[in-house]
Amino acid sequence: MADIPARTELKVTTGPIRGSRKIHVEGPNGLRVAMREIDLEPSSGEPPLRVYDCSGPYTDPKAAIDIMAGLPELRRDWIRGRGDVEEVPQREVKPEDNGQLGPDRSGGVQPFPNVRRDVLRARAGANVTQMHYARRGIVTPEMEYVAIRENLGRAQRAEAAARDGQDFGAAIPDFVTPEFVRDEVARGRAIIPSNINHPESEPMAIGRNFLVKINANIGNSAVASDVASEVDKMVWAIRWGADTVMDLSTGRNIHDTREWIIRNSPVPIGTVPIYQALEKVGGVAEDLTWEIYRDTLIEQAEQGVDYFTIHAGVRLPYIPMTAKRVTGIVSRGGSIMAKWCLAHHKESFLYTRFEEICEIMKAYDIAFSLGDGLRPGSIADANDEAQFAELATLGELTEIAWRHDVQVMIEGPGHVPMHKIKANMDKQLEACGEAPFYTLGPLTTDIAPGYDHITSAIGAAMIGWFGTAMLCYVTPKEHLGLPDRDDVKVGVVTYKLAAHAADLAKGHPAAKLRDDALSRARFEFRWRDQFHLSLDPDTAERYHDQTLPAEGAKTAHFCSMCGPKFCSMKITQEVRDFAARQNAPADTVLAAGDAEAGMAEMSEKFREKGGEIYLPAAE
Amino acid sequence: MADIPARTELKVTTGPIRGSRKIHVEGPNGLRVAMREIDLEPSSGEPPLRVYDCSGPYTDPKAAIDIMAGLPELRRDWIRGRGDVEEVPQREVKPEDNGQLGPDRSGGVQPFPNVRRDVLRARAGANVTQMHYARRGIVTPEMEYVAIRENLGRAQRAEAAARDGQDFGAAIPDFVTPEFVRDEVARGRAIIPSNINHPESEPMAIGRNFLVKINANIGNSAVASDVASEVDKMVWAIRWGADTVMDLSTGRNIHDTREWIIRNSPVPIGTVPIYQALEKVGGVAEDLTWEIYRDTLIEQAEQGVDYFTIHAGVRLPYIPMTAKRVTGIVSRGGSIMAKWCLAHHKESFLYTRFEEICEIMKAYDIAFSLGDGLRPGSIADANDEAQFAELATLGELTEIAWRHDVQVMIEGPGHVPMHKIKANMDKQLEACGEAPFYTLGPLTTDIAPGYDHITSAIGAAMIGWFGTAMLCYVTPKEHLGLPDRDDVKVGVVTYKLAAHAADLAKGHPAAKLRDDALSRARFEFRWRDQFHLSLDPDTAERYHDQTLPAEGAKTAHFCSMCGPKFCSMKITQEVRDFAARQNAPADTVLAAGDAEAGMAEMSEKFREKGGEIYLPAAE
Repeated sequence: MADIPARTELKVTTGPIRGSRKIHVEGPNGLRVAMREIDLEPSSGEPPLRVYDCSGPYTDPKAAIDIMAGLPELRRDWIRGRGDVEEVPQREVKPEDNGQLGPDRSGGVQPFPNVRRDVLRARAGANVTQMHYARRGIVTPEMEYVAIRENLGRAQRAEAAARDGQDFGAAIPDFVTPEFVRDEVARGRAIIPSNINHPESEPMAIGRNFLVKINANIGNSAVASDVASEVDKMVWAIRWGADTVMDLSTGRNIHDTREWIIRNSPVPIGTVPIYQALEKVGGVAEDLTWEIYRDTLIEQAEQGVDYFTIHAGVRLPYIPMTAKRVTGIVSRGGSIMAKWCLAHHKESFLYTRFEEICEIMKAYDIAFSLGDGLRPGSIADANDEAQFAELATLGELTEIAWRHDVQVMIEGPGHVPMHKIKANMDKQLEACGEAPFYTLGPLTTDIAPGYDHITSAIGAAMIGWFGTAMLCYVTPKEHLGLPDRDDVKVGVVTYKLAAHAADLAKGHPAAKLRDDALSRARFEFRWRDQFHLSLDPDTAERYHDQTLPAEGAKTAHFCSMCGPKFCSMKITQEVRDFAARQNAPADTVLAAGDAEAGMAEMSEKFREKGGEIYLPAAE
Repeated sequence: MADIPARTELKVTTGPIRGSRKIHVEGPNGLRVAMREIDLEPSSGEPPLRVYDCSGPYTDPKAAIDIMAGLPELRRDWIRGRGDVEEVPQREVKPEDNGQLGPDRSGGVQPFPNVRRDVLRARAGANVTQMHYARRGIVTPEMEYVAIRENLGRAQRAEAAARDGQDFGAAIPDFVTPEFVRDEVARGRAIIPSNINHPESEPMAIGRNFLVKINANIGNSAVASDVASEVDKMVWAIRWGADTVMDLSTGRNIHDTREWIIRNSPVPIGTVPIYQALEKVGGVAEDLTWEIYRDTLIEQAEQGVDYFTIHAGVRLPYIPMTAKRVTGIVSRGGSIMAKWCLAHHKESFLYTRFEEICEIMKAYDIAFSLGDGLRPGSIADANDEAQFAELATLGELTEIAWRHDVQVMIEGPGHVPMHKIKANMDKQLEACGEAPFYTLGPLTTDIAPGYDHITSAIGAAMIGWFGTAMLCYVTPKEHLGLPDRDDVKVGVVTYKLAAHAADLAKGHPAAKLRDDALSRARFEFRWRDQFHLSLDPDTAERYHDQTLPAEGAKTAHFCSMCGPKFCSMKITQEVRDFAARQNAPADTVLAAGDAEAGMAEMSEKFREKGGEIYLPAAE
C-alpha cells in the first residue's frame, strides 16, 4: 500500500490488496469488467480465485491516480451514445450550498479544481433511467457490466452449479445473463444506481437475486471531520468492500465535500438531500420549503449523486404513533420532516410533491432510497404501528415511482430482536412489490454500545439471508462517536462477512468457492493462501505473527494453537490415505465388522509408515 | 480497577466494574447470592438495574483477594452437610502430571502453595450428583442459589411478566423456583456443574430454560503462555461475563496450572482430560491406555474439575466417513482418539469403558460434556454423515449417563452456514433427550480469519435462540494464534451480546429490562447511564471521548453524530408532549382530518413554546 499525496491534506491509499491482482474481464463491445484474482501457492494445484472488487482503479498499479483530476469517465460514451441527453449550463453554485455561512476555507478545504462544465440532463420528454430502458427491452452496457461482474467464477467452476441453500422464494439463476439483469431491473426487483452525471461509476446491481451488497456511511459533521479525511475514508471503505458509499455530511462545505467524493468514486454515491436543505435554512426545520428542497435536488443531481434517501413516508397522521415509543423518532430526516409537519400542521411536502420529485429523478437516473423515517431506535420499538404504517406508504410511493420508470429501493430498520426480523422482510416484500430492501443492521440488542457492528451484523446476516439486497454498515462507534479510518474498515469487513454469510445461506452459486478454497488452504497449512483468501489479509497475517513471528512459521505445518508436536489436521490426511485403500467407499457407514477388517488393514499400513504423526517444526 | 500482585508474576484485575456495585441477595438458610446493581442518575427516576454477575469476589471491594490462598469455600458446608462424602488421601502427584519431562520451574511456575489436603469422594455406594439429589426430590442449596440468581430483577419489575418471543418449544417459567430448578436437573434438561472438590464455585445452571450461558477457553500451549497469564485470563474472562472457563492447557505444568486456576475460580472449570493423558505418554496417541486415562480422570476429579469433555462418540466405524471431508477431523480430542482407533484397529476405550467413567463422575459430581470429535471444521463439512452419526451415539451415551444419575451436556459445531443451523439444534434435542447443547459458535462463513468472533457470533446468537444452553466463545485470534488478554475480553463481550440477543428472541422474562433501561438513557442523553448499562462501560466511554473528550459532553444533550445544533431525539419529546394533550390516543392512527385538527392544536402549542428545538451546547 502506498499513500499518494495529492496535496498535503489529501491522501488516499492505493496499491493492490495483499496477495491479489487487479484483472479486467473482457465483455462484449469492449467492456472491461474489474475484478480481483487471488493467486494460490503452486502446491495447491488450484487456479487463481476470482473475487468481486469494489475498489476501483486505486488498487490497479497501472492506473494513474490524481485526486485533483478525478477518475476516468468509464460510462461517458455509453451515456452520450444513447442520444437522449443534452448538456445544460451548470446550476450556479451559491455560497449557502456550503452552509448558510458559506464555505469554510480554513483547514485546506478547497473547491474541487476540476469541476466538469458539461452537466447532463435528459432531453425534454426523455427518460434516462435504467428501468426505462429495461422496460423497453434495451440491454444497456451497464446491464452487461453487471452480468459479467455478478458471475465471477461461476463459468469457471463446476461446483458453482451445485446449489445448497434456503432462498425464501428468491429467483437466483445459475448463471447471470444481461437479459436476466434487464428483466430484474424492468420488474423493479433490482436497481443499477447510475446518475448520468457520475460517469466515473462502475455499474453494480442491488437486488435480492444478486449478491448481497453493503453500504458505508461517511461525512463531515458540525463538530468533526474534514474533506481530506472523508475522501480518504471513501477510498478506504471501497478498498475493503463497500459497494456504495453515502455522504451524510452536515454543517459547512457540504457541496465541496460531495464534489471531491463523487469525482473520485467508482461506486454509486448516495445522500440525504434534506440534510443540505436544512443547512441552507440555518437548521430551522420549519423554514424548509419545497423550492429550497427542489433546488437542492437539482444541485446534487448535477453533481452526480446516484441515489437519494427521501423520507416521503413520514406522514402527518403517523407522527403521534411515535409518542409512546421508548426512543421516539431516531431518523434525522424523519424527525426534520416530523418537525416541519408539526410546525405547519401540514402533510409533508416530500409526500405531496412526490410526482414532481419523480420528474427530477428520471431526468438524471437517480434512484429513490425511500427512507424509513419512523424506524425503531430500540428493541422496545421494533415492528410497531408507526414503523409499519410508514412501510405501507413506502409501498404506495414505490408504485408511483415505477409509473415514472424511476428505480426504487426501500430503507429498513434499525433495532429489531431476532424473532421479529423475518416479519420485516416479509412485510417489505409484500408492501413494496419486491423492490430491493436496504436495511441498517438491524441491531439485535441495545446493551452493547462499542460493539454495535457485531450486535447489528447478527441481524444483518439474517435479514440478508431472508432477502435484503443491501446492508448499511454499522461501526463500533455507532451511538457513541464519529467513525475514524479504523472504524470504517472494521465496519466494512464486518458487513462483508455478514453479506457473504447471507449469500452462502441463500445458496448463491459460487459463493461457497471462497470458503472452500480457504478451508483447503487451512487444512493444508498454506498459511499465505489462508491470509490472502481472507477478507482482511493484513489483519489475518498480523494476528498469526503475534504468536509465531518467525518467517518460517508461515510455511510450517502447524499453528500456535496446538503447537508443532500434535495437530488434528495431519491425522485426517492419514485417514484419507487409508480410506482410499479400502474397499468400502469412505462416505458410507461401515458395519462394525467391516470396519474391524478395514481398520485392521489400515492399522498395518499405519505401522508400516512408522505410525508417525509428529510434524517437523519449521526449519 | 486495581492490579493485585500476588507475587511479581501473578497479578489479577480486581475492583468493581465501572458504574456498578456488588450486591448479595439474601436467600433461605443464609444463602447470599452475588449480583451486580447498576445505579442510574437520579434524573432517571429509575431504581438500580440488577444484572447477572459471574465475576466472583474479585469485583467486591470488601473481599480480601489472596491468589496464593485461593477463594473462600462457599459450598464447603453444603457438601459436607449432606453426609454422603468422605475424606480420602489425595492421589500422589507424579512428575508426569506436569508433562512427561515433569514440571518446568523456570519462569516462576510454582506449585500452588495452599493445596487442600482434604480431598472428598462419595462414600462407598453413594452418588453425590445434583441430578441424583434432584431425582430423589431433594432441593439442594445449589438449586436454591441458581433459582435466585436466574430471577435477577424479575420479582422487582412488572414488565418482567410481559412475554414477547419465539421459544421453539422451550419451557421458560415466568419465575424460577427452586423446585423448577430441581425438576429441570432431574429431567436432565439442565445441569449444575459442581464437583465436590471445587467448593469455591458459585452455583450456576446450564439449560435451555435458563439464561443462555457462555464459556471462555484459556490454557497454556507448548509454544506459548504461562501460569501467571492463565490465572489472570481466567479472572479477566469472568469479569466480563464468562459463566464457565475451560482450561485447555497442553505441554508442561498442566497439573500446577489447573490447581492455580481452580482454587481461584468462582465459576465451574472444564477440561479435556485426554490432553493431559496424551502428555503423560509423550504425545504418542497410540500409547494411550485406559489405565493412564482413568488415573488422569481421578487426578483432575480430586483437583475439582467440574466438567470433562470426553469424545466417547468417536467410534471406529465413523472415522472413514471423514475421509472425503474438506477439513477432515478438526477436534484435537477427536483426532487423538481417531489415531488410537486406527493404530489399534479397536473401538475407542472412551466408548467401551463409558460405564466405568460414569462411576467416577458420580463419585465427585463431574458433568459430562460429550465432545463432538467429528464436528465440521469448515462450511463444506457441515451437517454431514460423520457429524450426525456421532451425534446419535452421544444420544445413546446420554441415556447411559442418566441411568447413573450423572449430569450431561452435549457439544456441538463448529462451522455451519445459517441455513443449516436449526437442523443441528433440532437433531440434538431429538437425539439427546433435551440434554443441554453446548456449541462452539458456529461460524457462518470461513472467509474472515481475524474476525471469527463475529462470523461465529452470528451463528451463536441464532443457535442460542433455537435452544442451545451454552455458547463457547471464539476470539479474533481463532485459527491464527493464541488469544491474549484483549482477545479474551473481546471474545467474552461478543458472546455475552450474542447470548443476550438469544435471550431476547426467546422472550426470556426480564431480559429486555436492560435494553429498555439503556435505550431510555440514550433517549434522555444520560451518557453515563448509557455507558454503565452497557456490557463494556470502559470501551463505550472511551469511544465517546475520542470524539467529544470534554467532561461537559457527558452531560450534554447532544452527541457527535448530529452535533449540538440538531438532534432527532429531542423532537420526539415534543411530539410526546403534544400527543399527550390530544384527545385521540397517541397510539392509534388518526384519520387525516383528525390529524389536521390535532396537528393544528399541536402547532399552536408548538409556536407558543417558541418553536425552538435547538439544544444548548454543554455548559
